[in-house]
Amino acid sequence: MKYTVIVKPKKAILDPQGKAIKKVAENYLNKEIKNIRVGKYFEIETETDDKDMIEKLAKNILSNDVIEDYEVKES
Amino acid sequence: MKYTVIVKPKKAILDPQGKAIKKVAENYLNKEIKNIRVGKYFEIETETDDKDMIEKLAKNILSNDVIEDYEVKES
Repeated sequence: MKYTVIVKPKKAILDPQGKAIKKVAENYLNKEIKNIRVGKYFEIETETDDKDMIEKLAKNILSNDVIEDYEVKES
Repeated sequence: MKYTVIVKPKKAILDPQGKAIKKVAENYLNKEIKNIRVGKYFEIETETDDKDMIEKLAKNILSNDVIEDYEVKES
């Protein structure tokens, strides 16, 4: 099975990395961009089909639930 | 418009960060995992609908095309 986990900063949390990339992108494109948020992307391959296990992994190991949200998708 | 850009290491490229996370995950779950690859995730909001612009940004600024692949999605 193949799973995708996306971890991104919560809406209320400042994302300084995103802000910095936004500035660079605006200079490069010479155009205004509304917002950029940066997160992490994990592609996980397992032998068995166990989404609960991946949820647990995403919640406890791959993300920090004080400042980040996560999303698990089967792919 | 909202776009998602995912940047991940090319298949042939070693991913030491992924390997490290794989070990931690296996210890935590007490189970074998086939593979973990780690990439970057960008959520970009723009006023105008211009996917070509986002493609250009992904290719030239957000990824390093020697070692990384990128993917642009409208969302």
